[in-house]
Formats: sequence, structure tokens, C-alpha cells
Amino acid sequence: MKKSCVVCQSGGPTAVINSSLAGVVISALNSKFIDKVYGSLNGISGLINDKLIDMSLQDKMQIQLLLSTPGAALGSVRYNLSNDYTNLDYKNILSTINKYNIGYVILIGGNDSMDTTAKLAKFFKDNNINVNILGVPKTVDNDLINIDHTPGYGSAIKYIATTIAEIKIDTSVYEKGRVTVVEIMGRGAGWLTAGAKLAELTGYGPDLIYLPEVPFNLENALMQIKELYEKNKKVLVVVSEGIKNEDGSYFFEKYRYKEDNDVFGHMQLEGTAVVLADIVHSKLNIPVRNIILNLPQRCSSHLASKTDINEAFDCGVAAINLIENNTGKMVTMENVGKNGKYEIEYKLVDVASVANFVKQFPKEWIINGNDISNEFIKYSLPLIQGEIEMTYENGLPVFAKLNK
Amino acid sequence: MKKSCVVCQSGGPTAVINSSLAGVVISALNSKFIDKVYGSLNGISGLINDKLIDMSLQDKMQIQLLLSTPGAALGSVRYNLSNDYTNLDYKNILSTINKYNIGYVILIGGNDSMDTTAKLAKFFKDNNINVNILGVPKTVDNDLINIDHTPGYGSAIKYIATTIAEIKIDTSVYEKGRVTVVEIMGRGAGWLTAGAKLAELTGYGPDLIYLPEVPFNLENALMQIKELYEKNKKVLVVVSEGIKNEDGSYFFEKYRYKEDNDVFGHMQLEGTAVVLADIVHSKLNIPVRNIILNLPQRCSSHLASKTDINEAFDCGVAAINLIENNTGKMVTMENVGKNGKYEIEYKLVDVASVANFVKQFPKEWIINGNDISNEFIKYSLPLIQGEIEMTYENGLPVFAKLNK
Repeated sequence: MKKSCVVCQSGGPTAVINSSLAGVVISALNSKFIDKVYGSLNGISGLINDKLIDMSLQDKMQIQLLLSTPGAALGSVRYNLSNDYTNLDYKNILSTINKYNIGYVILIGGNDSMDTTAKLAKFFKDNNINVNILGVPKTVDNDLINIDHTPGYGSAIKYIATTIAEIKIDTSVYEKGRVTVVEIMGRGAGWLTAGAKLAELTGYGPDLIYLPEVPFNLENALMQIKELYEKNKKVLVVVSEGIKNEDGSYFFEKYRYKEDNDVFGHMQLEGTAVVLADIVHSKLNIPVRNIILNLPQRCSSHLASKTDINEAFDCGVAAINLIENNTGKMVTMENVGKNGKYEIEYKLVDVASVANFVKQFPKEWIINGNDISNEFIKYSLPLIQGEIEMTYENGLPVFAKLNK
Repeated sequence: MKKSCVVCQSGGPTAVINSSLAGVVISALNSKFIDKVYGSLNGISGLINDKLIDMSLQDKMQIQLLLSTPGAALGSVRYNLSNDYTNLDYKNILSTINKYNIGYVILIGGNDSMDTTAKLAKFFKDNNINVNILGVPKTVDNDLINIDHTPGYGSAIKYIATTIAEIKIDTSVYEKGRVTVVEIMGRGAGWLTAGAKLAELTGYGPDLIYLPEVPFNLENALMQIKELYEKNKKVLVVVSEGIKNEDGSYFFEKYRYKEDNDVFGHMQLEGTAVVLADIVHSKLNIPVRNIILNLPQRCSSHLASKTDINEAFDCGVAAINLIENNTGKMVTMENVGKNGKYEIEYKLVDVASVANFVKQFPKEWIINGNDISNEFIKYSLPLIQGEIEMTYENGLPVFAKLNK
């Protein structure tokens, strides 16, 4: 008997997590070994609470629009599944799986979601439950290991590089300008912040870039900023939200909403640029401005990378192609191009080998603690190629809306 | 003898002020009554300090790229010209005008720049100097009077509406979300903030919109936010940086850099969303996030409105077409369309009738102090129509660079 497939979206959304969803859904609906295709609302909490929707009943046009819609069309969740199989969640998940004759589960998500995928895979195996589960990677942070880069990252840095160039142009118009400090996302790794370097290719790059991989030396930074300001009368500083002091503590220690730590215990770091701009202003007596790029970094579908959209879609397709005979694995992308050529192949890696590890930005790509090397440009440039074909109506993008 | 023309850019840049520059330069270079065409670097300070560049020597391709380049390619200035004709500035301006045989001056700018235009027009007239001067309007704020709308505004609200929709989608993914407070520019008028209403046309609009034209009642707002949060478990609040208390003081009184008031005495108001989000968090004990859209509102050329770009260009063309026989006037746009049709005609108005007045957002378009009426949608929708044809290279936009 054919089994059905359920797909979940999990963790913070990206500009292309819905493209992966479309890849899964379209190829699952066309698959020979899959019966019905369900979407689980709000990640695995849909499995726990029996909230599945039949994807074959969705408007085809809306499925197509998923490729240019940010957010997570099925809803997302941050939920830390227990390791204790006697936990009621497992009983509820099993009950939903039996009710809908589920044989295949796909979790689209980042690091924490791969942890959940590993737990569920182990649970199914330990209890001889005939369900295969695969993870499909997504995260703007690009901090997963065993993958060339993560879907979502290319669009994020295309947005960041474009926006940094536009800000550089805007902030350069006065003879005597300010020190502008732009804060970029990236809790533990500097991948997103490094993306600002690409703005240089337009002729309008940032002046200083500070990543969390190198301890932030405030005195040095103030000296560098002062020197550049005296020379150019305006400075564009790009800083990761997660830069750390020499002692390993976050630069922005007085983070705003301590009590809002998420369920995985991650801190809310937003505000690093505010603190740094404040210090520049008070210590150097230079006019400042802080800009926190914030959510648009991960939800600006209108500026998504075509390459990223296609790869996210193909990761979803690969999951369906491989799930019949595999479980406990994550779809990965390997750059198999020879002689510096870029050519992605879709493969599987053990999901437990990915979960809970963080891929740092290579320290050897950081120059003098405030610049990024050309090696990074070579690595990241293929990821931002191509522009999205957005459908506009009334002068505004058309976004997908699923029936739930 | 034919006279030469000089063009200046002034005040805060927009996504399309360079399109107006292109309109002026291209039509001036083709004009029969104009000799040479100069660009004045950094607004009128180029006239004061003899810093003009010959626009005929610029690469034609770069002039074309101005249509999709943010910032002010000639550089800008905020400079409050004295009313006292014995001030050295007037002597220096005259000296530059004589040196380059200038007969025509065009100032592209906002309210303050129209004030400068009026002053210079009066100076030329009072002293029988044979120089005509016209203003070309630009400001994202849309707060000039005697004009249907200002070039720059359409692109800004196209960016704002798109970004608000994308943020709405992103912040809706969790069953239990936050109160997200988004801060929009607009020192004295709510035009830009109202633009967020257009996001509704995508199906993803904001929940509450607060404009500076109606006193901000914090207790009411907290009640409205609480009610919506209890119902939907997430709320998207859009707030103007300039909202005021009942007593007329700014809601965000503890503005960050008091000493950075610009030369016209305007305060830096950024931070309204931070303060409001803080209060929501501490009073209602709801998780919050604040997002300040900041400079990208005025420099996101990649999402500019085609209509806006064309109109900005045509305003520049109109200035050249009309400057031979006119002075002391501003190019204006009148919507002469009948029966709700949109049709712009380019005319002139007395620049003194524009300078130093502020066009408030109509109070009758504000509903219940927290929503915007369909009248506004009808008014603003034509302004965001059409998408920019951006040139991409390396996956990033190509921006103009003038030789200076």
C-alpha cells in the first residue's frame, strides 16, 4: 500500500523556504510511491495536534506563487521536542501518522529543526515504526555544516549587498557626513555580515566590516573609524549583531529583552549598532546614525536570488526523490564544479552530523579584523546570481496564500 | 549670446532625484537656447565655492544609469542661505555665475531647497541680474503644497508597502508571535506612514497605523494592541517617527542626538518604535520587536516606481522647457485626469508659495486614529505603478558614477 507524505516548515523563515515547500509538494504530488501529500501547520506541532492540510486541494497558482513568497506558508514553530519517548508528544505524533497513513516526513528547517529531525528519526527506528524522515536545509545564517551553503543565504546576501550599496550612495551625498553603523543578522557566525563585502562590486562598498569570529576590539575600532572619518568625512561601518568582546561576552551585553530568549535559549542581540553608534558619538564627538537591517534581510522576496530560489526548490525535489529508501538524513548541496566552476549536486548527509554544530566564517577570510578577502567573494558570488521574476499587481508583488 | 545652465541637488536624497537630474541634463544638452550644462557639486555650495562640472563630458551611459541610482550624484547640501545680500555667499555665487556665463539655475530639492530657490530668485531680481532660477521638487515626504504629489514619494511608498507586506508575512508564521512596531519616516506629515496601508492590497496589511496628524493617545493604543494580540496572537503596528502627544510634544521626547539637529533646526526623531515597543513590552508583558525602516525608504532604487522615475525625469525636462522665460517658480505636477482618471500635467507655481509650508495628511482620511481610508488608496495607487528596469551585473544592480 502506498504511504502518504507530510511536510513541515520550522524555525525562522527565509525568502526561499516556501520555494523548498513548492519543490516538495509539486514533486510529491507527481510521485509514484506517494499517496497523499499533507502540509503540517506550524511545523511538528501540526503533527502533534492533528493539524494537517491536503496539499492536492490547494490552488495550483498559489503553489507556483510560493516561489516568490517570503515567510513560511504552512506556519512555523520553534519547539524543542523531548528526548523522552514517554512524552505525550510522541504518542500524539504516532496517532496523527497512523490516522493519515504517513510513511514519509519532511522537515524544512535550520539547525534546530535538524535536531528535531534526528530525534524523530531515532524515535521511529528505536520503535520499529515504518516512517522515513528527511531534513531539507534552510537558514539565512549559512551556519550549517556538511553543506556548501544553505538555501536562504544567497537571497539574504543579495539583499544585504544591494542595500549596503544603496545606503553607501545615500550616506555619501554630503561633504561632511556621519558615521553610519549598519547592523546585520547572524547570531553566532559572520556569514551574513560578510555578504556586505559584495557591495564593493558595485563600486559602493562598506568601509569597515566587523564579524563575530574575531574578538571586537573597541579601542582599535574607534581608531579605525576616527582615521577614516578624518580622511573622508563619512564612514560606513557594517557590524554583526553577534560581535564579541575579547573575553567572549557579547559586545552588546545589555541586550534588550532578556526574558524573550527563545525556547532554544538563544539571546535577542538586536541593538549592537545602537550601542556602537552611541559610543562613537560620545567618545569621538562625530555625528552618527545606526541602521538595523532587521527582518527584511530574510523576507525581502522581491530581491531574492534566482539561483537561491531554484536551489531551494531543487532541495525539496531531492528530498522526495530520495525519501523512499532513506531516513535520518538531510539533503545537502555539494559544489562539484572543477577548476573554480560552480556546479551543485544534491546528496544526503546524516542529519545527526549536522544538528547542533555551527559552521563559523573562516578566520583566514577575515583581513585585519575589519575586512573580508576575495576568497569569500569567489565563494559567495554564484549564490546571488539571477533575479526573481516577480508577479506585480497594483504595483505590488503578488504573494501566495494557502487555504488552511 | 547663449547662456549656460547649472543644476544643483539639495536636501536629503530620494530614489529618483537622480532621474530629475538626468531629465534636466539630457534636455539641457539638447536645448537650443542653452550653451553649456554644468552640475554644481553639493548643491549651492558648488556655486559658492566654484565647484562645477561640465555635464557634456560625462559618459552617456552613466547619465542613463542615473534613472536607477539612488542618492544625489552631484552631492547634496543642507545650507541655509542668508537673507543678507552683503553676505559673502552672494558675492561668491555671482562670481561663479559670471565666470561660467550662467543664465539658468535649477535647484532640485525639497521644502528647504525651495526656500533657497526663492531667496536666490529675489536676489537676482532685486539686483537686476539676468539669471532665471527654477526649482524642481523632490522629497519622499510628499509634504510640499501646490503639487499633486512629490517625485520620490511614489518610490518610497512602493518600498514601504512591499516591505510591510513582507514583514507581515514573516511575522505571522508562529501561532504565538509578537507585537511588531515598524517605524516609518516623516518628520511632520504622515504621508509615508500612510503608504503602509497599500500593503493591504497584497492581502498582508498592517493592523494599526498611527500618523502624526492625530494626537497619539498611548492608553488607547495599548488597549487596541492588547485586544488585537489577544485575538490574533500577533500584531503589526506601523507608526510615524513624528507622532505627537496630546500636548503637541513628540511622543519620542528623549530623542537620541539632541546636538545633531540639522542646520534648519529639525530634530532627529528616530527611535519612536523603540520607545513604543518598550512600553508595550513593560506594560502589557507581550513579546515585542521594533523595526526602523530607516534610509532604505528613500534609497531603495531597486524597488523604485516606474511612474515615479518617469515623473521625476519629466519634471527635470519641464524645468528646461520653461526656464527661458520664467524665474522664481517651481515645476509642479497637477492631476488633470477627469472622472478619477490619473493624468499628470507639468506646470509652474510661484516658489515662494511652496517654500516653508507643510502639506499635512488630510485628517478626514484617518479613520479612528489608527487606520487610513480608501480615499488615500485611490490617491496614491497611481504613484506606485510600474517596476524599474534595473541593470544587474554580478547579481547586483549597476549604479551610476559621475566623473567629478
